[in-house]
Amino acid sequence: MTGFGLSSGFAHAEGGVVAAAGFFAAATHCGLKGDGKRDLALISAEEAVAVAAVFTTNRVAAAPVVLSRRHVSSGHARAVIINAGNANACTGPQGEHDARATAVAVAESLACAPEEVLVCSTGVIGVPLPLERIVSAIPDLVEGLDSRDGADVAEAIMTTDTFSKQLAVSVEVDGRLVTVGGMAKGSGMIAPNMATMLSVLTTDAPLTPEACDAALRAACDTTFNRVTVDSDTSTNDTLILLASGAAGGESISTEDDAYPLLAEAVRVVCAELARMIARDGEGATKLIVVTVSGAATDEDATLAAFAVADSPLVKTALFGNDANWGRVAMAVGKSGADVDPGLLGIVFAGIEVCRGGGAVPFDEDEAFAALDCDEVTIEVSLGLGSGEATVLTCDLSYEYVRINGEYRS
Amino acid sequence: MTGFGLSSGFAHAEGGVVAAAGFFAAATHCGLKGDGKRDLALISAEEAVAVAAVFTTNRVAAAPVVLSRRHVSSGHARAVIINAGNANACTGPQGEHDARATAVAVAESLACAPEEVLVCSTGVIGVPLPLERIVSAIPDLVEGLDSRDGADVAEAIMTTDTFSKQLAVSVEVDGRLVTVGGMAKGSGMIAPNMATMLSVLTTDAPLTPEACDAALRAACDTTFNRVTVDSDTSTNDTLILLASGAAGGESISTEDDAYPLLAEAVRVVCAELARMIARDGEGATKLIVVTVSGAATDEDATLAAFAVADSPLVKTALFGNDANWGRVAMAVGKSGADVDPGLLGIVFAGIEVCRGGGAVPFDEDEAFAALDCDEVTIEVSLGLGSGEATVLTCDLSYEYVRINGEYRS
Repeated sequence: MTGFGLSSGFAHAEGGVVAAAGFFAAATHCGLKGDGKRDLALISAEEAVAVAAVFTTNRVAAAPVVLSRRHVSSGHARAVIINAGNANACTGPQGEHDARATAVAVAESLACAPEEVLVCSTGVIGVPLPLERIVSAIPDLVEGLDSRDGADVAEAIMTTDTFSKQLAVSVEVDGRLVTVGGMAKGSGMIAPNMATMLSVLTTDAPLTPEACDAALRAACDTTFNRVTVDSDTSTNDTLILLASGAAGGESISTEDDAYPLLAEAVRVVCAELARMIARDGEGATKLIVVTVSGAATDEDATLAAFAVADSPLVKTALFGNDANWGRVAMAVGKSGADVDPGLLGIVFAGIEVCRGGGAVPFDEDEAFAALDCDEVTIEVSLGLGSGEATVLTCDLSYEYVRINGEYRS
Repeated sequence: MTGFGLSSGFAHAEGGVVAAAGFFAAATHCGLKGDGKRDLALISAEEAVAVAAVFTTNRVAAAPVVLSRRHVSSGHARAVIINAGNANACTGPQGEHDARATAVAVAESLACAPEEVLVCSTGVIGVPLPLERIVSAIPDLVEGLDSRDGADVAEAIMTTDTFSKQLAVSVEVDGRLVTVGGMAKGSGMIAPNMATMLSVLTTDAPLTPEACDAALRAACDTTFNRVTVDSDTSTNDTLILLASGAAGGESISTEDDAYPLLAEAVRVVCAELARMIARDGEGATKLIVVTVSGAATDEDATLAAFAVADSPLVKTALFGNDANWGRVAMAVGKSGADVDPGLLGIVFAGIEVCRGGGAVPFDEDEAFAALDCDEVTIEVSLGLGSGEATVLTCDLSYEYVRINGEYRS
């Protein structure tokens, strides 16, 4: 199974990012958010464990991305520290120093090497990090590490998100119960490209670093990389998978029989977190699932699906519950994908509106009602081949303009 | 001179698309717009004259685009008929028939060949053209052709435009006064790509068809193709230049001494019309001029400038008069252009906010006041080479969402 399809065989588990055995977390308010809400989160294993990560492709990568990319290259890490409210991006040499100092402070409290600490930041770009507030909060944060629930840390990493995003699933592998859990945050500047917004996954499966990397990249490509809120790719996108091995058993590489099932568990958690990010896009009133089939190639299907999902004209029409399929045709036509206008078909929320490139009469009231819901599908068929792709997005509302016009986020 | 720079040496002239000698126009209400406003425009020469045109690159090209592309290939045309209120796009074989029938009706009234008539349509996509209303209005339209003023026809082609767009300039060439005039309409689904929204230019200079084509393509590339309102490329973009030769003199090819000055006059008219389109983008409260310099290549500068101009996060910040330069840095970084974060410089409305990739302290009140005006410049320097580009856009407001969420346009 690929993309956003759901798999059977997985049981939901409680605890989010600490659902897997061997992980601990804590969150606090250190003063980066003005409203007293939690803004600093720490996730730690008992010792350095296998790790893999995917980072933003934005050339203006934030200082913590540069540092974490270096630290993750060893294939092992002990902890991830995440602050919300300040991205530590476009902050020059001072920003690099601050990211490193954050890792050093965590390492001192955990008694590990700074290179075993990954750092993530999210928030406003171009403002120096209030380092002292973060560093002074770290000893208590380490003191408070526990494995009871990931809810507090999932909340601490939020910026304009309206709900926290966490999930865990369990599955039996070789007679042992294995868990994969995770958390993520959105909710604007979301158009991941080989990366995503901040998301941390943990598992107690004994995956090797290489297996972590393979599973994470494969999952990312069909989930987080198929989400767009506003076509803007963040400077801070980071997706991390830590594998503690606490579930026991022999280490699992990509060659082992147990690997495909674990990779699928990672994909399921990524798919659900990605779906939550799209649903909670800034100002969103609905989740929009764009599926393109019949393309000449999968690449063409992806181009066409993103063109529809990124079109402000399509997104505003969806906000207004208007089955304005001409805009979908326009978006497909400009996408760069191979298109024969005479073969184009469009189904809006289950209602066929275009066949053979021309209009199919439909009841406007029925269409309005079908579109006036939490989740709307747009299915485009190109009639040229077997290429297909699914991209998730949300509508474009007054609230998106308010959030981004009135708040320096 | 290139891009949007103004040239001296040209005198403004009255009359828009009929300012040049040898052209006549008429407009009427035939019933495509519901509010009794003019919705059908005809521009005609006394006989077939030299013509060139540039069309949308959207693969889902409208029927009138397909027809006009064929008709313009001869290098000569007599008339252009334009309707607003219906794009005749995604209308299948019926749409092709309707575009052809419109040309035939005009040809019958003008007593010319249908192949000498170009057809343009703009408005809602996917709705059959009310052909009978158009055809029955044509005899009176032809009867009413005159050369007094282009204002009525410039108004007739408007859709969500808030003001009509026309312009003419005159210049002496080889001792004769030559005029280039034109009109255009926007104002959403604007991201021309080797084409533009509807625009018709006329000149009485005796340009050959090849010279018309060369001048039009060169002008389009640095003017209309450097405008984006919402990154969506229309199915109906059409830019036409007709040259009557009524100013007299020998015919002018691209090899003649008079050509550069005439090409520059065409560019000036295109630049001003393109500027009007950006200023009147749907819901716009201000014109935004994005200039990128110091790029490794001109192509990189164009990529970076479009990434800034198309970013909904940049556009909403500008709507809120917020000098949120971190979003500009983000957009440049995701653009695909070669970027060294440590060399990035940004000047917002004349205020330096970023140097060497880091923040330059500035007065927030002063910045708010500088941004609270009709036209704002964003200057980005990459410090890598001599590549540069300018792109025009507008801000993203509540009104854009209202127009496109509430109105099937």
